[in-house]
Amino acid sequence: MDLNDHIREIPDFPKPGILFRDITPLLSHPEALRYTVDLLAEQVADLKPDYIAGIESRGFIFGVPLACRMGLGFAPVRKPGKLPAATYSAEYVLEYGTDRLELHQDAFPSGSRVLIVDDLIATGGTAAAAVELVKKTGSEIAGFGFIIELTGLAGRNNLPDLPIVSLLQY
Amino acid sequence: MDLNDHIREIPDFPKPGILFRDITPLLSHPEALRYTVDLLAEQVADLKPDYIAGIESRGFIFGVPLACRMGLGFAPVRKPGKLPAATYSAEYVLEYGTDRLELHQDAFPSGSRVLIVDDLIATGGTAAAAVELVKKTGSEIAGFGFIIELTGLAGRNNLPDLPIVSLLQY
Repeated sequence: MDLNDHIREIPDFPKPGILFRDITPLLSHPEALRYTVDLLAEQVADLKPDYIAGIESRGFIFGVPLACRMGLGFAPVRKPGKLPAATYSAEYVLEYGTDRLELHQDAFPSGSRVLIVDDLIATGGTAAAAVELVKKTGSEIAGFGFIIELTGLAGRNNLPDLPIVSLLQY
Repeated sequence: MDLNDHIREIPDFPKPGILFRDITPLLSHPEALRYTVDLLAEQVADLKPDYIAGIESRGFIFGVPLACRMGLGFAPVRKPGKLPAATYSAEYVLEYGTDRLELHQDAFPSGSRVLIVDDLIATGGTAAAAVELVKKTGSEIAGFGFIIELTGLAGRNNLPDLPIVSLLQY
C-alpha cells in the first residue's frame, strides 16, 4: 500500500504559500489507517520503548493505537492547563512568540524508555519540547515516530542524536 | 478488570468545587488501555457503525484505537480553524459564551452510520454539536460511545434518542 495515496495536499493552509499535508483521508480509510499503525509499530520495534508519549493533538491520533498495537502505555503531552495533576512544562518557539507543552510528573516510572510520537515533524520545535519534558520525568528517549517528515525544514537537526522513524518524507 | 481502579480523582480542577476524573492512569496502563478499547468495541458492535467520529482532543485518544480495533475509518471533529478542507460548523454553549466545532464536509460517504466518541459526557453540549455536524454530511448517527458518563449532569437529555454506551458512570 502506498500511503502517499491517502495524504491530501491543501494549498495555502493555514496561510498563503503553505502546502498543507492533510492526513484525514488516511484516517477515514480503514485499511490505510491500520496499515499505518502496523508499519510504524514494525519500524520502531527495535527501539524497544516501554511507553509512548503523544503530542497534542494529532500525536494522540497515532500514538494511542500504536500503544495498543505494541502493548504499551500512553502519556499525553498537552497544551498548558489541560493536565490535572502536577506537571513539568517546556517552552518552544513559534513563528511569532513562544508556547508551552506540559507532561504529568508521574507520567512514567523513572528509567522508562519513551517513544515520542507525532503526526508530523516540521521544524522539530514541539518534539524538542517533548524531549525536555520526558527527561524531566527521569526517563530516557527511545526515539521518535512520525508519519510525515518535512525534510526541507531539517527538524532532525533540532533533536538529540537518537533514532527517528518517519513513514513519509516530503 | 475494574476500570475504576485506573481513574484518578483530582479535586478542584479545572476550578474549585469540580472533582475531575483523570484518565491518564488508565492510558499509562497497557492492559487497562487495551481492555477499555476492547470493551467499548464489544459494547458498540451491535450499533453497526461504518465510521467513528472523535471529538477533539480526548475523543481522539479512544476513537482512533476503537476504529483500528473495529476495522473502521475515523474522522476528527475539531476546534475551529484546524481542519484544512471545506468544513461544516456547529455551535455549542459553554458556561460563559459559546464555542464551535468543525467537521470536513467530505468526512464520510453520504448515508454512512457514524458512531460519535468522546472520553466523557457531562452536559452533552459538544456531543450534540457533533450530531449536528454528522447530519450535515448526510450521514446518520449509529450511537454514542463514552468512557465516562457524569450522570448527575443528565447529558443524555441533550442528545437524540439513540443508543448511548458509557463504560463508567459517576
